[in-house]
Amino acid sequence: MPVFDESAKGVYLITVTPFSDNGALDLDSTDRMVDFCLESGVDGLTILGIMGEATKLTAEESRIFARRVLDRVRGRVPVIVGASAPGFAPMGELAKSVMDMGAAGVMVAPASTLRTDDQIIAYFDMVTETLGDKVPWVLQDHPVSTGVQMATPVVLRIMKNAPSCVMLKHEDSPGLAKLSAIRAASDRGEVRRLSILAGNGGGLFLPEELSRGADGAMTGFAYLEMMVEVCRAHAAGNVEQAHDIFDAYLPLARYEQQTGVGLAVRKYILAQRGVIASSAVRKPGPKLSAQDIADIELLTRRQEKRLREIQ
Amino acid sequence: MPVFDESAKGVYLITVTPFSDNGALDLDSTDRMVDFCLESGVDGLTILGIMGEATKLTAEESRIFARRVLDRVRGRVPVIVGASAPGFAPMGELAKSVMDMGAAGVMVAPASTLRTDDQIIAYFDMVTETLGDKVPWVLQDHPVSTGVQMATPVVLRIMKNAPSCVMLKHEDSPGLAKLSAIRAASDRGEVRRLSILAGNGGGLFLPEELSRGADGAMTGFAYLEMMVEVCRAHAAGNVEQAHDIFDAYLPLARYEQQTGVGLAVRKYILAQRGVIASSAVRKPGPKLSAQDIADIELLTRRQEKRLREIQ
Amino acid sequence: MPVFDESAKGVYLITVTPFSDNGALDLDSTDRMVDFCLESGVDGLTILGIMGEATKLTAEESRIFARRVLDRVRGRVPVIVGASAPGFAPMGELAKSVMDMGAAGVMVAPASTLRTDDQIIAYFDMVTETLGDKVPWVLQDHPVSTGVQMATPVVLRIMKNAPSCVMLKHEDSPGLAKLSAIRAASDRGEVRRLSILAGNGGGLFLPEELSRGADGAMTGFAYLEMMVEVCRAHAAGNVEQAHDIFDAYLPLARYEQQTGVGLAVRKYILAQRGVIASSAVRKPGPKLSAQDIADIELLTRRQEKRLREIQ
Amino acid sequence: MPVFDESAKGVYLITVTPFSDNGALDLDSTDRMVDFCLESGVDGLTILGIMGEATKLTAEESRIFARRVLDRVRGRVPVIVGASAPGFAPMGELAKSVMDMGAAGVMVAPASTLRTDDQIIAYFDMVTETLGDKVPWVLQDHPVSTGVQMATPVVLRIMKNAPSCVMLKHEDSPGLAKLSAIRAASDRGEVRRLSILAGNGGGLFLPEELSRGADGAMTGFAYLEMMVEVCRAHAAGNVEQAHDIFDAYLPLARYEQQTGVGLAVRKYILAQRGVIASSAVRKPGPKLSAQDIADIELLTRRQEKRLREIQ
Repeated sequence: MPVFDESAKGVYLITVTPFSDNGALDLDSTDRMVDFCLESGVDGLTILGIMGEATKLTAEESRIFARRVLDRVRGRVPVIVGASAPGFAPMGELAKSVMDMGAAGVMVAPASTLRTDDQIIAYFDMVTETLGDKVPWVLQDHPVSTGVQMATPVVLRIMKNAPSCVMLKHEDSPGLAKLSAIRAASDRGEVRRLSILAGNGGGLFLPEELSRGADGAMTGFAYLEMMVEVCRAHAAGNVEQAHDIFDAYLPLARYEQQTGVGLAVRKYILAQRGVIASSAVRKPGPKLSAQDIADIELLTRRQEKRLREIQ
Repeated sequence: MPVFDESAKGVYLITVTPFSDNGALDLDSTDRMVDFCLESGVDGLTILGIMGEATKLTAEESRIFARRVLDRVRGRVPVIVGASAPGFAPMGELAKSVMDMGAAGVMVAPASTLRTDDQIIAYFDMVTETLGDKVPWVLQDHPVSTGVQMATPVVLRIMKNAPSCVMLKHEDSPGLAKLSAIRAASDRGEVRRLSILAGNGGGLFLPEELSRGADGAMTGFAYLEMMVEVCRAHAAGNVEQAHDIFDAYLPLARYEQQTGVGLAVRKYILAQRGVIASSAVRKPGPKLSAQDIADIELLTRRQEKRLREIQ
Repeated sequence: MPVFDESAKGVYLITVTPFSDNGALDLDSTDRMVDFCLESGVDGLTILGIMGEATKLTAEESRIFARRVLDRVRGRVPVIVGASAPGFAPMGELAKSVMDMGAAGVMVAPASTLRTDDQIIAYFDMVTETLGDKVPWVLQDHPVSTGVQMATPVVLRIMKNAPSCVMLKHEDSPGLAKLSAIRAASDRGEVRRLSILAGNGGGLFLPEELSRGADGAMTGFAYLEMMVEVCRAHAAGNVEQAHDIFDAYLPLARYEQQTGVGLAVRKYILAQRGVIASSAVRKPGPKLSAQDIADIELLTRRQEKRLREIQ
Repeated sequence: MPVFDESAKGVYLITVTPFSDNGALDLDSTDRMVDFCLESGVDGLTILGIMGEATKLTAEESRIFARRVLDRVRGRVPVIVGASAPGFAPMGELAKSVMDMGAAGVMVAPASTLRTDDQIIAYFDMVTETLGDKVPWVLQDHPVSTGVQMATPVVLRIMKNAPSCVMLKHEDSPGLAKLSAIRAASDRGEVRRLSILAGNGGGLFLPEELSRGADGAMTGFAYLEMMVEVCRAHAAGNVEQAHDIFDAYLPLARYEQQTGVGLAVRKYILAQRGVIASSAVRKPGPKLSAQDIADIELLTRRQEKRLREIQ
């Protein structure tokens, strides 16, 4: 099994959860999706996040899906599992269950009721108490979905208090200044240098985040190869090339990042690409119209043309 | 088993979930609490609501607690189980599980992401689809916890669309005008007359809600006999007596209804009264200070004195 | 002019703004209201707060109303003016204008966009910069209306940074623990002892707040004599008597503190008492139904009876 | 004066409010900005919106700025003034004042307290009552800033109730389905066809909105010529060309649309382009770091290169 610690880098893809047209878990598509991700060069997978429709699964379905992914990955890359929960007992139960199955770590966002700095810090002390010191975990900083704004000093305090917090999923928006400030703190030796994977705007600021010191990306996009190639070009010092690749995909990425309807767009494209069998999203969820599909087709066609131009 | 339908009336107590000092489920206290409620004259129980710390229990603990309560009640009064969930698959799974154990019905609040009238109505159509037409359910209207405001026409539409919705837990605040409007609609024959149990402000408007046509109360209070006696006096036409009883308990009820800290107050008093063994609230949760306890003691002493005066 | 500083105590009434039935400013009623307040024994007035419908007045109307109140008070008690504004230029303009007219100070709540501790502290540094060091000001801590939760350390930092902040309007809910913590900090000599006036729940926790060290009350109630008498009894060491008075008014006070509709209740009673000519509330605002008025009449009658009993 | 009615189309630029480095209104820059906009081919101007820092101006400053813009425009294009206000008296006062100066209309967003469909519709009935039937107005649908979600039937009802509502500023996100639904309703003859100007994501979906029937754009961007050219190409039937232009500007537009920091980016670029003298944003407001400026320079350089390629 690959190590999952502060040195993690590259692309950790936020996967979807494939369903068949009737809404049942689609385990064959799950296998195909895992294969596709690994062939595309991702460095890790993150499952059962918001875009994985985690809250729409029964506890039993979550376990079945997680086990299937882990069985297919066979330890080739780390698999992180979303473990945010409204209480610590269910969080602890889920974390134990997936770590026993072979997950590399879990991801936790702050509870949406938290407001003050002290409340947030105390919450993550309880997370640490719940997970113990053997489970590496990812701090998810996504105010748009949680409503919780964590100031830079709060993130630094959480890192100091929790040695098993090895990664920040950076999704604050705007968030570039915060990313720079966290990196500056570890450069000054005030805190450990933990892994930061970018997700601001669903990856819509990836080149800028890499320039500010992000180690890669943790988000979702139907053309995940964009993230792999941008990260590789940037790591190789080819900043302009990273921007060229990013810009070619940006019109479609922007379209796919629309809140709510975006997941339907992503699953539609993944189904078109043959990765998953059905584009079904569980209720309550969006459906695409003929106009939406026309938009996607136009954007995809233009994207292909542009990619040929920059090669 | 008593019928649970639109004719339901009286007091349906929102119970706490007893824990021992170390945070484990306390099943002996659960038995004692059930006995205490039934001896106090409640007409039903509602378990696994917000004040039952439902989100802090594992799925397994929820099942164990529900089964214990149902076994102890032995069908003497209906038991309603909170089934609000972020997705329909877990909602359906929980509802099926507790109905199989002998619950009389479930309670569902709107998901916190809903805003427009159409979104709310569509959501409850999906609830109905999820529960089927055999499970009687309670519509919980509690904007303070959900953030969702359901206008009177929306409540009426949900009632029309869902014949198995038999009860409204009325907790909008201010909510007296809405209660009157819903009753007026059934008086005019526009909709069924469903059961409405009062919970506005945690029962702090009980006499007024009964005068507007509520059929009883569904909320929690450590002195649950207050609600029983107020409802009985009111049903017997003794409105002034209902107010006398209510007013005697109001200073403490007001104190116990403080958001957040209120559950600790309730469990402290229940433990003092010998109903549950420990006042423990699971994390994250409030703790009482010495000053809080001094407040409670002063208010309890004054309450006892006042109750003697009005007898 | 009476001094307005950290030693302030007693009742600072949050006044309404009287309108005639057609919605125009009613300046005769304004005079009568000022007289009524002073005769009732208030120690100060706070005008142009939320319950004064400040945001529904034009800038010109605000000035006319403030001037009329100040002219009528003639310096007998301090008058505080609400100066919260979405920007510092209008805040500064309003503060200068009312201080020039003779106001004793202004009141400022945090902007509703603030979340983190540092954001809140930085905001009040800008408030201080805006007001200068000559304008005594009241920090309004009312999360229900602002959405901003200020932790105790944040309140203490604001007090340290702003020597001209002389008073805290304590309206956090639940807020008793915070009040105790702020008082403990000044008892330990860590910060100045500033004046704290109670408003938690619209005064529904007045006896408890006084026991925790509040210096009085700053809130509104149509029977303002309740607050005056409770504060005097408490200050004289007659805690049980303070509770007796409070409890007699509590059923109506609770009714008047309903969010939204409460202002219509307050103005209805003030009009019934002859203090203001009309109960008109400007749009958008609530209207009382016949049932609401029946509730008020029942509660008022019972209140009078109870007051006779405790004398 | 050009007519401002349902036939309005093209680009209505949301302008900034220029300040000098010390924060004072900069009227010379205001003149230059107006000239720049008109030379760039805009069809109208919208002033004193959120991005115009309207809430940070005193009432007097708002009047001075509005008068200066109107004097400079001299009726060549319609000027719309933001008139959203927490109360109807100040809204009416502001609207009257700017219409008297020569504004073509005002723009109103729903108050942030509104939730249910009926509340929203009732609110805009009061807006109509406030403005009278002589003032053409723009309905601003921007849930991200107001927190108010207006369903399509609600927008249609507002249009029916208010004949002087001539334009929708379409900023719901995701909003493409709503735009299509509103257009479908007028195509079916159910409602008037009003003007819809696009602003979803700050213009980040401009080509898609034009394809769905938007008549132009109402938003801000430092390179406003992008919007002019995209709208013209689209209106001429050159959809691919419209996308080509849009895509060339998209990387920078995306950067400038970051919430909060975006206004500082916009003013920085406008100052670099010589349109305004200073990039100053009034407090509370963001400041750009050296890294932010490096990002902007890289994106601007790449944008220029790409624009040369597509010519």
